[in-house]
Parts: sequence; C-alpha cells; structure tokens
Amino acid sequence: MNQVFVHDQLIRFSHCDPAAIVYFPRFFDLAHSTMEDWFAQGVGFSLPELIVNRRVGTPTVSIQCNFAKPLRMGDTLRFELQVTKLGNASADLRYRGLKDGAEHLRITQTLVFMDLDAGRAVPIPEDVRSRIAMYLASAQEAAPKGAAKP
Amino acid sequence: MNQVFVHDQLIRFSHCDPAAIVYFPRFFDLAHSTMEDWFAQGVGFSLPELIVNRRVGTPTVSIQCNFAKPLRMGDTLRFELQVTKLGNASADLRYRGLKDGAEHLRITQTLVFMDLDAGRAVPIPEDVRSRIAMYLASAQEAAPKGAAKP
Amino acid sequence: MNQVFVHDQLIRFSHCDPAAIVYFPRFFDLAHSTMEDWFAQGVGFSLPELIVNRRVGTPTVSIQCNFAKPLRMGDTLRFELQVTKLGNASADLRYRGLKDGAEHLRITQTLVFMDLDAGRAVPIPEDVRSRIAMYLASAQEAAPKGAAKP
Amino acid sequence: MNQVFVHDQLIRFSHCDPAAIVYFPRFFDLAHSTMEDWFAQGVGFSLPELIVNRRVGTPTVSIQCNFAKPLRMGDTLRFELQVTKLGNASADLRYRGLKDGAEHLRITQTLVFMDLDAGRAVPIPEDVRSRIAMYLASAQEAAPKGAAKP
Repeated sequence: MNQVFVHDQLIRFSHCDPAAIVYFPRFFDLAHSTMEDWFAQGVGFSLPELIVNRRVGTPTVSIQCNFAKPLRMGDTLRFELQVTKLGNASADLRYRGLKDGAEHLRITQTLVFMDLDAGRAVPIPEDVRSRIAMYLASAQEAAPKGAAKP
Repeated sequence: MNQVFVHDQLIRFSHCDPAAIVYFPRFFDLAHSTMEDWFAQGVGFSLPELIVNRRVGTPTVSIQCNFAKPLRMGDTLRFELQVTKLGNASADLRYRGLKDGAEHLRITQTLVFMDLDAGRAVPIPEDVRSRIAMYLASAQEAAPKGAAKP
Repeated sequence: MNQVFVHDQLIRFSHCDPAAIVYFPRFFDLAHSTMEDWFAQGVGFSLPELIVNRRVGTPTVSIQCNFAKPLRMGDTLRFELQVTKLGNASADLRYRGLKDGAEHLRITQTLVFMDLDAGRAVPIPEDVRSRIAMYLASAQEAAPKGAAKP
Repeated sequence: MNQVFVHDQLIRFSHCDPAAIVYFPRFFDLAHSTMEDWFAQGVGFSLPELIVNRRVGTPTVSIQCNFAKPLRMGDTLRFELQVTKLGNASADLRYRGLKDGAEHLRITQTLVFMDLDAGRAVPIPEDVRSRIAMYLASAQEAAPKGAAKP
C-alpha cells in the first residue's frame, strides 16, 4: 500500500511550442509514457503483454489536467503516480507533475479494463489487481491539501 | 449570442493506435486545431495575429475530457465549440465531439489571456471579447442534459 | 497521365518548435496526410478501404527530404504530388512543398504494396494501378531542373 | 576519433499505428531525441545551451531514411550515431537503427550551424567542433558494406 511510482522525463525541443513552453497536449503523451512504465516496472505486467497475450486493454474514459506552471526545454518533469481509487473494473490514477519539487501540473485519469475480444469491461485480473493495490494512496493522501490550481 | 462553431476533421491513420482507435492524447491536439480555426474564422483574430502582433497568448489552465465512444480511421470527427463562461481574463470552452450526430467525447477547457511580454493575465481585449461573446451558450445550454459520460 | 495532386495544409501552432518554424519530423506527417488524401480522392481507394477491406498496405521503404526554406505558423503549405516511377509492386512519389509558389522543401518516397496477411510485397492491384498511373510525371518532369536544394 | 554514440529507446504504444508497427514519421522524432542526447552527453553542449546561451541553431537541411524491417511496441530501438562528414559549417550524421544487433533502419542527415540572430550559416564553434570530431567515422566505416536496404 501507499507506494509511489516516480518517473522522470526530459522536456525536449520537440515538446515545446513557439512560446518555448510545452505544448499542453504533449503532457498527456508524457503521462501515458509514465503509465506504460508503471505497468511494466511497477505493476509487473507490460501493456504489450496485457494487450497481446491476455487481450486486456486499459482505455481511458476520462482525464483531467490542471496546469499551474509551465515547463521548458531542458527541464526534468517528474511524475509521481498513485492510484486514488480501485474499482472492480476501473482504476483512478493521479499524476503529480513536479519540477525541482514544486508541482507544475496535476493529472487525474480513470481507466477501465476491457476484454479486447468481447469489447466490454471486465474485472481487473486478480494478479494484476493485487499489484495495482500496492500503489493505492491512503484516504488522506488521495485528496491532499495544496493541489495544483491554475 | 448562442452561435456554435462547427469544425470537421478526418480521423487519419496517424491518429490511431495499435487498437485501431484514436490514441486519446491526440484528441487534445484535434481540439486545439478546432480552437485555432475558431479564433481565426469565428472570432476573427488568428492565434499568430494575437501572439505576434498583439503579444497576447491564451494558455490553457485546465482541461477535462470524457470519452464515451471510440473513433476510428476514416471517421469524421465534428467538434461543436461553444463558450460556457466568459470571465474578465478567462474563457471556458466546451467541445462536443460528434460522429454522425452522436456524442463520442466532450472536452471542457479554461483559457486565460496573457500579456506575453509582462507574463501575466490581462483582461480580454474588448474587440476580441465582443466576438467571443457571440459563441456564449445560453445558461440552459451551458449545462445540458445528456452530457457524454463514459 | 501527368496529373498533379494539389493539397493545401495550414501550418499550425502545434507544428512549430521554439524557433517558431516547423519541427522537421512533422513534415513527414504532413506528407502522409497528403498521401492519404491522394489515395482517397485522387486514386479513388482510401487507405482504410485498402487496409481493412482488401488487406493491402503501402509501407514506406525509403524517404528523403531536402529543406530549402523554413515554414512558419499561419503559412499555407501546398504539396504537389506526382508519381515519378511506377514499378510492379512499388511506386515512387515526389512531393514538392510550396509556399506562395516558391519551393520550400521536396520529399521523395518509395512505397511498396504489401499483402498484409501474407506479409510480403504483391503486384499493385490492377484497378489501383491504372489510377495511380494518371499521376505519373512525364520523363522530363520526373527530374526537373531547379529542385529544392538547401 | 571514431567514437559511436549509443542510444536506446523503448518503442511505445504511442509510436505504433493500426498495423501495430512504428508509424514511420515517428522515427525522425526518435532520431531527433538521439541527436539531442548526443549533443548534451556526447558533444557536451546541450541544444538549449547552444540555442539560448550561444544563439546557435542546428537546422536540418536534408535527411534520408531507409527502412529495412519494422519495429513493434515493446521493442528496444538502438541508434548508433556517428559523424560521416564534418564541414566548416555543416555535419553529416548517420544513425544505424538496430534491434537485437540487426539493422532495421538507417538515417543520414545533414545539419548546418546557424547564427540564430543573423539568420545565416556560421562556422561550427571551435570548442563544439573538436568534440564533434571525436565521433567522426573512419573513411572505411563512413561507407560500410551491408547498409540497410529495403
């Protein structure tokens, strides 16, 4: 319980727009990379393994992002990922986006687990679920004070 | 008042992932294209004009998306954009994402207007504001029944 | 014979980098959009139709680009596409990238036609081939003077 | 002389298309990441440092790629970067793209060094040049047998 998956990514030239800050749609791609690496390294089941071998997908049904401060080329973006809610067939993830310890953005996302052949939601497989549960934030942490606000 | 900016985009090969549906971060890029064309054609001030000539930017401070149904290569995505709230220095936009009349996704976004040289929020310029106001949804429409839910 | 497929695209905020010019990898995505629209509108067989219904893909085996002049946000990029060589299972395409009539970049690309189930090259289907042949540049035009050079 | 900059990147879900292989324009973005890390770690001058502090840019004037074999989600792409030609104001780079030791693609690129304020090519700064020269391939290696061919 209560583990945090920490993932650092370099903000590259290609992430930035003519204002020299990250073009905001790319933050969702950067968060997706964090989620992929969390599945592979934290949960212990990579997305290719889930999709190809087990025919389980994890489509996003909702996502929300608050941007408090911009990021620039050469910055290191640290995402701290935790699970804020673990349902039968769904999970809520929270990504705190930090630079030098200060929160610059915050993303919350709801995933559902899908049987890719049947095309419908399925309970999270038990072996996957028990590993996801290790990243479940305590109730207190799931709604912390001082969340990123624009 | 109460105008809707309608914007069609073809879902391309490059938008889709190995599951053959749109990779969700690309919807934010597609919505950004709609916003750019709305500024240029609907509001009457293009982003390059605002940014380069008037030194006014429109950074996004928060964005939220609900995905109800996937979209596939060859589909036409229609975004219907309206303004749901018009503040002194900010505007809330809503994008209803339709395919063949059915809502597949819905995005809500808050923009602020920034003086790019001073680096701080500024009141929306009056000539821009009066045009934006034409797209303000009526109170009833700003919170319709039947919003996209996963 | 000798038709030219003309395709205009707006250079958007999202295409540009911190130097305010197009980030060059995006030109290949823009050319891919031109190719997709050429297949659908010029050749008369869309990529989704070829891929899904006929199980024929068109992977790129080589591509080359010369960049002569940069493009900026708000510019309109016109690609003029022609076929410079039509083989049994392959086609060479040339994209002249123009702004206001002046060549800013030039791309040449070799596609092969693949049986997606068998995973190997196949002769171009006859109905597709006869339409592609309409865009074959005359020998003289296939190697014009004044090609884009950096 | 004759050093090779070795750079590994995971092929992600987001890099792949509905055929479940890398969408080819993304290889240019992956190569750009390799180039950025080579400048920062190999050459010892990061792009942000060159661009922001020294006002020197490195626009690409031509690029060419041969694709021999596809790459899939979960693969590790190793780029081996060397300099094949070092001019007064330009450099030719070669990226051999390997998976498990086998060459899957090969990119060659010509960069020029630009004074960003004057907007024209300039000789490569001497301190940068001496470091770039460490990666210059020997004449024999600059044109090896067995180059990637489709």
